Amino acid sequence: MFLRGAMRVQRKKALVASMISLLLGAVLVYHWKASDSSVLNVQQRLDSAMEKLIERNARHWENSYDDIPYHLKQTSVGSLARNGCMCEEDPQSIKVPLADLFFPRVSAQDLKLAFRPSKLAGVKQRRQQEYNDFRRRSQSAADLLIVAEPNSPLQYPTQGLEVQPKRSVLIPGLALKHKPRSLYSVNLTASMGIFNMAATVNEVQVSNEGKMHIALSSRALSALNRQLQFITYTNTIFHPNTADVVQFGTDGFQAAFTIKIRHEIPPKLYDPGPSAEYNISALVTIATKTFLRYDKLQDLIDSIRLFYPTVTIIIADDSEHTKPVTGPYIEHYIMPFGKGWFAGRNLAISQVTTKYVLWVDDDFIFTSNTRLEKMVEVLERTTLDLVGGAVREVTGYTATYRHTISIEDGGEEGDCLHIRRGFHHIIEGFPNCVVADAVINFFMARTEKVRQVGFDPRLVRVAHLEFFVDGLGSLHVGSCDDVIVNHASKIKGMLPWGQSETDKAYSKFRYPAASNIQNALFYFKNHLKCITSN
Amino acid sequence: MFLRGAMRVQRKKALVASMISLLLGAVLVYHWKASDSSVLNVQQRLDSAMEKLIERNARHWENSYDDIPYHLKQTSVGSLARNGCMCEEDPQSIKVPLADLFFPRVSAQDLKLAFRPSKLAGVKQRRQQEYNDFRRRSQSAADLLIVAEPNSPLQYPTQGLEVQPKRSVLIPGLALKHKPRSLYSVNLTASMGIFNMAATVNEVQVSNEGKMHIALSSRALSALNRQLQFITYTNTIFHPNTADVVQFGTDGFQAAFTIKIRHEIPPKLYDPGPSAEYNISALVTIATKTFLRYDKLQDLIDSIRLFYPTVTIIIADDSEHTKPVTGPYIEHYIMPFGKGWFAGRNLAISQVTTKYVLWVDDDFIFTSNTRLEKMVEVLERTTLDLVGGAVREVTGYTATYRHTISIEDGGEEGDCLHIRRGFHHIIEGFPNCVVADAVINFFMARTEKVRQVGFDPRLVRVAHLEFFVDGLGSLHVGSCDDVIVNHASKIKGMLPWGQSETDKAYSKFRYPAASNIQNALFYFKNHLKCITSN
Repeated sequence: MFLRGAMRVQRKKALVASMISLLLGAVLVYHWKASDSSVLNVQQRLDSAMEKLIERNARHWENSYDDIPYHLKQTSVGSLARNGCMCEEDPQSIKVPLADLFFPRVSAQDLKLAFRPSKLAGVKQRRQQEYNDFRRRSQSAADLLIVAEPNSPLQYPTQGLEVQPKRSVLIPGLALKHKPRSLYSVNLTASMGIFNMAATVNEVQVSNEGKMHIALSSRALSALNRQLQFITYTNTIFHPNTADVVQFGTDGFQAAFTIKIRHEIPPKLYDPGPSAEYNISALVTIATKTFLRYDKLQDLIDSIRLFYPTVTIIIADDSEHTKPVTGPYIEHYIMPFGKGWFAGRNLAISQVTTKYVLWVDDDFIFTSNTRLEKMVEVLERTTLDLVGGAVREVTGYTATYRHTISIEDGGEEGDCLHIRRGFHHIIEGFPNCVVADAVINFFMARTEKVRQVGFDPRLVRVAHLEFFVDGLGSLHVGSCDDVIVNHASKIKGMLPWGQSETDKAYSKFRYPAASNIQNALFYFKNHLKCITSN
Repeated sequence: MFLRGAMRVQRKKALVASMISLLLGAVLVYHWKASDSSVLNVQQRLDSAMEKLIERNARHWENSYDDIPYHLKQTSVGSLARNGCMCEEDPQSIKVPLADLFFPRVSAQDLKLAFRPSKLAGVKQRRQQEYNDFRRRSQSAADLLIVAEPNSPLQYPTQGLEVQPKRSVLIPGLALKHKPRSLYSVNLTASMGIFNMAATVNEVQVSNEGKMHIALSSRALSALNRQLQFITYTNTIFHPNTADVVQFGTDGFQAAFTIKIRHEIPPKLYDPGPSAEYNISALVTIATKTFLRYDKLQDLIDSIRLFYPTVTIIIADDSEHTKPVTGPYIEHYIMPFGKGWFAGRNLAISQVTTKYVLWVDDDFIFTSNTRLEKMVEVLERTTLDLVGGAVREVTGYTATYRHTISIEDGGEEGDCLHIRRGFHHIIEGFPNCVVADAVINFFMARTEKVRQVGFDPRLVRVAHLEFFVDGLGSLHVGSCDDVIVNHASKIKGMLPWGQSETDKAYSKFRYPAASNIQNALFYFKNHLKCITSN
């Protein structure tokens, strides 16, 4: 009896063991099937897609009319993009004192002078390496030139096609418009996806369905074109943001178009709340950085509270011996001593939870002219991302510091940065407001856009335009001169146009003795070789 | 004599006064000419450009083959983008305890349940308003569908054209390939720029040069085509990031293509320094957030220092009573009490000055398996922006928390977010590494990319996947299971698969009782209506 009992126990154990194994096996199979274990070199596929386009460009459309003469126009030559760029200074035409103040001339800075000559070769080589990696990560087949062949019987989409990774899309607009013939055939080829039919049409033969290269043929042209209305492209090689090249061909003709493959970028929206008017406390956070100037900071806070008692004020503080800064809706952040100007700015904006952020310096004073509602209105009713105001000095001089900026391609030596006083145009409906590329350090901006650009914490001391340079192509920048904040600092210098902090920062770009740290950063980080400014 | 002296003084004053006026006048003229005072409604021009394309789409290429029948394929229908989206739960097929643990089924969450029914209508209406503004700011004519007409004598560029704001570009690839006729003519129209000739060719008549609509004609086709090699487009209506539509036509045929108008986005590069190997201290900053756990934090720091004595560690601290955390290369930031998890994360990354940032929780412990060099190698040699590692619990269970994420278009009700365990594919050359869309909270990433996505400070308590949802379309995410950090917290729960913090965050998506704050944010901020996850 004992033996039978022992065997029964053993059998039970065996049974339980096999059930557990079965269960584990089932779990493993379930999870294994859920993931695609294929090993892929996505980069190869991307390169292959781009190479196809580049080859095609070299072959197909470069017409040769070299025998026909032309007359170059002098004016055009200068304005076209050249194969390198130059930073040219204006000659000093009026040699009188203060000439530059009245008639600002363009001066140039050579950025490689920020490096010791012995180090420069290494810096340049590492910069080129980082730059090539950056270009590789940010370019796709969607950026390459494609030229449509004339007199081609092919109809196809040339832009606007997009598919999410690993998903499918119906390709619109495919058709063949040949003259009558006995057999009509087309083929489609891709590098990062496959083709399928969403529906089938009689009289059409399809070969290689579900592959990267399919061919369709039919004796009836209308049947073939009906079938072409049901072609789907399914991305099979995952990439979060790239493009595939589709080649669409028939006897003697070839067309190419790209399909963007990318995750849909989700919006980052803010709820303005149910108020009918602009609720400044719900929409705006005031951000500032302070260093050693608690008295000025308190003056700023007191002046804000006269007009906006419940707006949140975020203070980034890198003073050596910090004092508490308290009060309702005050958020005081303590940084390690001396971390710096842009580190403090980046910290402050990183904490904002409202749709807009207003940047102020800690020595500003709000007055009845500091109507934040006006700035909110511009941002709500236009596509601007950032709108600057005006800063009034003690003397009455009011500055908006409007500048335009552009970067000119320069090749391996680096690009050319051009900074000019001025703006692009006045904004219709807002006669006090203009569009520019850089403005003064008193501005309201969309929190998400300002954070996307960011204030580079590598800039420890005076810096200003770096933010707007980093923002090129991302920020739509404006400036309204009817929203005014007062600047509490003493007059520096004897001219009516007193030297303020702003002017000092500005001066960095006029005079060649600019900070080495800033220039070294422009050189490496932004791949620049020189700056012109006026 | 006195009178003559007085008159001389008066004359001098008058002279000085007129000289000053002249000078001021000259200065004013100089500065006035520097700025373009035109008042522009840029939005109207953009809309006009986009409308042209939409009209053209409606007219030109929609072929009608409605009389030809087709057979829909069942499999295709599901995978194509639908006109709305659905969040469908898997039915509970196996009704045994712990079934969900072994065979995770898909569960769904309805996000509008985060709002009180009385508030929902207002929330939904404001969300739609914000969403429409967002779409308006982020779309351009370059996103619209264009279909190339077949059998057209026009040759033209279909993609790849780009010009900086207010600058010029030569348009490549324009040509006319008509059959012989007595007169050949073409015309070009734009909305945000003008056309010019970089060079002129004999026998070609050009009208309206320097305008938004030019016409060219010639009796000699080769002369016309030679002239077409010298057409330039100059953007005249400033916008930092948009596209113009160019219509290129001849008798009976019309083509359309877009030219992107945008500032060149400057790169943001980091100098890795002259070392031949990976210099972790120069390349990587470790970032963490702490709250009340100074002992665990010190254990973390001590463990890091065993292997990386000079790597900078940034600590964001929102404890109520903060203690100093000191040591070489330690940066301790004090936040207002309880600002929260993602506010702390956003603060920490805002302070990084190296190319890469490594995120760690304050209760991790570095071991000899925590080889940061491996993560750096993956980021240096692939296009990944972020690579997660593995976190080993006390029990030995090691988690990588790999998930794939996608967003399906849903229309006005909002979109559908789908989260699944798993990954996309293994990375060639890195057999321990895969590509996914979300990973565990132990990862190294490119500082610039992580800051561009950001950690939303509106998320105060537990949150994790929100960062990866915000990163969709921006971050290329990977995961390597051979870089392991230990998790110092106690075992929670009895299963070998113990409930860690990670699992708790994960649980939020499995069980409908998820945080209202998180769901409300998904609903409004990301324009979602529901979430499915397994």
